Amino acid sequence: MEEQGIRKYLPKVVVTLVLVAALAMVFLISCSDRDDEGSSGESSSSAAVSGDAAAIAEERGLTPDDITAALKTYTPTGVHDEYIMFASGGHSGQVYVVGMPSMRIIKQIAVYTPEPWQGYGYGAEGTMETLAGGDVGDHEIRWGDTHHPALSETGGDYDGQWLFINDKANARLATIDLRDFETKQIIKNPIAINDHGGSFVTPDTEWVIEGGQYAAPLGWEYSSLDNYETDYRGMVTIWKFDREAGRLDPDRSFAMELPPYWQDLCDAGKKVSEGWLFCNSFNTEMATGGVEDGEPSFEAGASQRDMDYLHIINLDRAIEVAQSGATVDVNGFPVIPLDTAIDEGLLYFAPEPKSPHGVDITPGGEYMVISGKLDPHVTIYSFDKIQEAIASGNWETDGYGVPILNFDDVMEAQVELGLGPLHSQFDDKGYAYTSLFLEPAVARWSLGGPYAELNDDPEWSLVSKINVHYNVGHIAAAEGDTVSPDGKYLVSLNKWAIDRFQNVGPLLPQNFQLIDIGQPGDNLQLLYDMPIPDGEPHYAQIIKADKLNPWEVYPEVGWNPHTQSPDPNASQIGEESIVRDGNNVTVNMTAVRSHFTPEHVEIKAGDHVVWHITNVEQTYDATHGFSLPVYNINLSIEPGETVTFEFDATEDGVFSYYCSEFCSALHLEMTGYMLVEP
Amino acid sequence: MEEQGIRKYLPKVVVTLVLVAALAMVFLISCSDRDDEGSSGESSSSAAVSGDAAAIAEERGLTPDDITAALKTYTPTGVHDEYIMFASGGHSGQVYVVGMPSMRIIKQIAVYTPEPWQGYGYGAEGTMETLAGGDVGDHEIRWGDTHHPALSETGGDYDGQWLFINDKANARLATIDLRDFETKQIIKNPIAINDHGGSFVTPDTEWVIEGGQYAAPLGWEYSSLDNYETDYRGMVTIWKFDREAGRLDPDRSFAMELPPYWQDLCDAGKKVSEGWLFCNSFNTEMATGGVEDGEPSFEAGASQRDMDYLHIINLDRAIEVAQSGATVDVNGFPVIPLDTAIDEGLLYFAPEPKSPHGVDITPGGEYMVISGKLDPHVTIYSFDKIQEAIASGNWETDGYGVPILNFDDVMEAQVELGLGPLHSQFDDKGYAYTSLFLEPAVARWSLGGPYAELNDDPEWSLVSKINVHYNVGHIAAAEGDTVSPDGKYLVSLNKWAIDRFQNVGPLLPQNFQLIDIGQPGDNLQLLYDMPIPDGEPHYAQIIKADKLNPWEVYPEVGWNPHTQSPDPNASQIGEESIVRDGNNVTVNMTAVRSHFTPEHVEIKAGDHVVWHITNVEQTYDATHGFSLPVYNINLSIEPGETVTFEFDATEDGVFSYYCSEFCSALHLEMTGYMLVEP
Repeated sequence: MEEQGIRKYLPKVVVTLVLVAALAMVFLISCSDRDDEGSSGESSSSAAVSGDAAAIAEERGLTPDDITAALKTYTPTGVHDEYIMFASGGHSGQVYVVGMPSMRIIKQIAVYTPEPWQGYGYGAEGTMETLAGGDVGDHEIRWGDTHHPALSETGGDYDGQWLFINDKANARLATIDLRDFETKQIIKNPIAINDHGGSFVTPDTEWVIEGGQYAAPLGWEYSSLDNYETDYRGMVTIWKFDREAGRLDPDRSFAMELPPYWQDLCDAGKKVSEGWLFCNSFNTEMATGGVEDGEPSFEAGASQRDMDYLHIINLDRAIEVAQSGATVDVNGFPVIPLDTAIDEGLLYFAPEPKSPHGVDITPGGEYMVISGKLDPHVTIYSFDKIQEAIASGNWETDGYGVPILNFDDVMEAQVELGLGPLHSQFDDKGYAYTSLFLEPAVARWSLGGPYAELNDDPEWSLVSKINVHYNVGHIAAAEGDTVSPDGKYLVSLNKWAIDRFQNVGPLLPQNFQLIDIGQPGDNLQLLYDMPIPDGEPHYAQIIKADKLNPWEVYPEVGWNPHTQSPDPNASQIGEESIVRDGNNVTVNMTAVRSHFTPEHVEIKAGDHVVWHITNVEQTYDATHGFSLPVYNINLSIEPGETVTFEFDATEDGVFSYYCSEFCSALHLEMTGYMLVEP
Repeated sequence: MEEQGIRKYLPKVVVTLVLVAALAMVFLISCSDRDDEGSSGESSSSAAVSGDAAAIAEERGLTPDDITAALKTYTPTGVHDEYIMFASGGHSGQVYVVGMPSMRIIKQIAVYTPEPWQGYGYGAEGTMETLAGGDVGDHEIRWGDTHHPALSETGGDYDGQWLFINDKANARLATIDLRDFETKQIIKNPIAINDHGGSFVTPDTEWVIEGGQYAAPLGWEYSSLDNYETDYRGMVTIWKFDREAGRLDPDRSFAMELPPYWQDLCDAGKKVSEGWLFCNSFNTEMATGGVEDGEPSFEAGASQRDMDYLHIINLDRAIEVAQSGATVDVNGFPVIPLDTAIDEGLLYFAPEPKSPHGVDITPGGEYMVISGKLDPHVTIYSFDKIQEAIASGNWETDGYGVPILNFDDVMEAQVELGLGPLHSQFDDKGYAYTSLFLEPAVARWSLGGPYAELNDDPEWSLVSKINVHYNVGHIAAAEGDTVSPDGKYLVSLNKWAIDRFQNVGPLLPQNFQLIDIGQPGDNLQLLYDMPIPDGEPHYAQIIKADKLNPWEVYPEVGWNPHTQSPDPNASQIGEESIVRDGNNVTVNMTAVRSHFTPEHVEIKAGDHVVWHITNVEQTYDATHGFSLPVYNINLSIEPGETVTFEFDATEDGVFSYYCSEFCSALHLEMTGYMLVEP
């Protein structure tokens, strides 16, 4: 942190001379570097425009740091971003796909909330099935509170194939296929009404972890709060992922009953700790609220003890126990009872200070990093020490009989960082980064053990802090959850934006801030502020863009994206038809620039209509929309896709269906009449 | 366009020297200009970081034009954008709010599609009412195809108070209040099933215009296509805006019956043409499609004639006629019959080449600019000449008896621009800009008449073109629809992105491109590519940011945003209660960091529950969410807001409600239990 002092007394002219020399190089190099294809069309001269650079910077009040930040983030037309960030959308229910370092949102993937541009939940059969998968009985739930996205991994590295994300509000998980960036599955947790600690994958994505949050009787049963300690329970659910089918498989999944502490985030062990699972918890006080009756509010009641419990789970052994059948049935789902978990050595606790909100495993799996949000330290546990402590048998137990390992036996180090530490990420230089909600700031600190040699800073020490704007929850580093983090970039997912952007009414965006973490030591640079326009992201993962290989168009004409296989209802050009069988009408339609075939669909009031449309195009980006008024239908039919919808013709009249995705100069003429005769 | 040639032969070293000199100035100025507050936190030295500028540009392959573009668009932390663009979201049903020149999406306003982050359509009573306003009978329509946003105007300039936007798919209009950026009204057109030419405002926003699109029997009646010429009709609807009430008022609105040509976009006259209205049309061929039966497809049938008809409407006189009661009743809505319109001199046609897709009025109201998408020219009509032609009585009529003015009598000029011209915008330098869908490019051309003196280019001539990526529909210039355009920036709303961004599956984003139009002549610079993540915007309007003055928090605690007045159901701290009356339970709750009061809500299965929550905060950005599992409820309760929702307790069990907007370090503890006893 001394550079700040030095810089303070550096004559400005020296700073300037350094910069001018540097910039001279910039322009010498860049002039000969790339054609200005697309950059200024066929007209303006680079000399003329670039000669205005001084005036631009002066007029816009850019500092030298602003200028380097601009150069580090600006991504010219046609140049692709180096990284892609997948961020949850919070209670928007969706997932953001963000290019980095430009910080542009390239797509928002509809997950729990219907979204008509993508044709998600507005008639298209496969999407209606996906959404219905998350219903509870007769209750159609058409939103979600997405928290923690998890990219699929192979050998502990992101493989770019699948993305999972939970819905905290209703304890659900979703599976997104990164071949087409579409949600293929929503699955309701059969035993819990809400969750939080999801989703997290094991290093080869054989299992997807969903931890609980607010304790309740398992299986959505009713019980009075008077019976909290006996009837209320926490849980963690271990979902089997069938990579071939592209679905979570409830028939091969199970859960573990846990004490009614409020389990929070989890992380799967990796490398040396592979086969283990770590979840933290808060409200080990078992406070039950009731501020209206003079009881301590939850915020007070759940913050009384100095320690909560890190849950240490022998995942490999738990899988064996579940597969052995030593489970009980809750709502048709197998659950390992708490007593069995204790008896079988599946569950241990380690004390963790204080109301923690995240556990993060170092890239090599050696350490578990915990931040208690009401404690100024980050606490690091050693996996080796945990194993020794378990082997020693030297522990006490909690009220439910769970072994509590001795804090001093398992703690490797503590580093004082500041106020409100929450979540940690890792880089390739032996540093960890922790968000500090209350300062608000992001702290860089040095790891010890095998990481100590990667930088010159003393191990287990605070190295640098950078202010963020404003209160930061999670942070995400490039490939920061893998066995081989990239460093380079870190994003601070700030919860409050306040004055950062033009005021847009009482409901404000959040603020993602991109931070350059490429230089070691006390050298972090804030690069970019990015508003979040319609959600409140909690967590994000950042993958190298070249690991993603989505399809440009569907593999063949007549493709069903829900099954990812040819659709038996596809029509090729010339095969279109309208078939009547009593009151049942089947429409087989094709779409191509710039017409639908047929252009007239004549039916009668009371008919039940099943309608298939195939986009016969195989041109990249040649998507057709299909909009049908009154019946709440809108489809997005991508090149090659076949889609099906159905409805009862309850309303007579004349209805113009049309292509809602501007596809050609004659797009407005891509329409037809559905005539419903009374 | 000669600079390109000159530049081609300029030695690169000369270019470089100019740039270096310029940049020296940049840094001299900027070093002393602004504290680097927030820019590099408390650590990094500007000299150290900025000294890397050359390496940054080299590593990232930035050209000199890229560097100036970066400097023109990069907006440092805490600095606000100069302009705000309101863009339709197309069939996402929403509206984007974009900061310029940074091109960051600051908010997405939910309009026709429910959106849980904003608490729009997920229980909150006012929003449920707004959405239900757009239903058709029993049909709940929960999406829209938003096309043309219109900012409210005073004296022909944007006043920053209201925004209107249509839904093409279902012929609806929405009213958005820019005090809180929330949708307050959706209204269904009573006579038409779809629209396109909306929304457009008169210069003082007394009226909001909605034009039709695909002809159909008025009032959603059924009639066979065999009766197309007799039974099918076009329309334009003139909605009265009650600025005091903040609502479109159907009781003071009316429509005009038009021939079954497909009316498209409209524009209200301004200044010299105030009181008149202009709409274009296509398919004056009255093609009815039927490609499946060997008839010409719509795309062919509607493109046969060389001319379609510009509709010229005497709006002031039409209002008088409607108010005199010379209307017929269609679905309870007053409609001026076509014969009456002709007899009263309300409607004239002027031939317009060929399948046009937009009419735009010059800032002073003197000229109507039309582009036929199958004609390489832009055609300019003179309002004075139109008036003379009308006065002359020298016309023929179409098959419905509508006067067709002589093309040569009313045409002022034609300028050959290129392939697929669509829409035009204006600046402060006497230029117009027209999108060319097929090239794709944006053309700058010079206006004549009173605008000729504003630049050095010959009047009515093509001045410059800039390539865009890719096919461009609308364009939007800063304050480009007003009586006093700003120039400076223009956005090209491109429909295809293809290779511009990282591939994100078969459904790709659109691409907004920011263009610097600040320099006269052949001097346009492409500044920025912005992906559109979840919609297909059609049109946008761009307002100076300082004209917007939204509330930071609601005016008082207990505010109802739907009525924009105090809510009788508001609770202050200490007034919370749960009141039972038979099976009806009323919950009066408050929210404040970090607890709800009450924290226990105990009800019985079968109860009907009415639940009010007041966010008693008055701190900027202190929004609380409210999530209730299973019942599909999510609210966004902004500071001061009172919100109401209700439901039947059909599901027993234990349900944790919680704050879904991360509000404080103890946000996770902001929860409570709803217990539903069987």
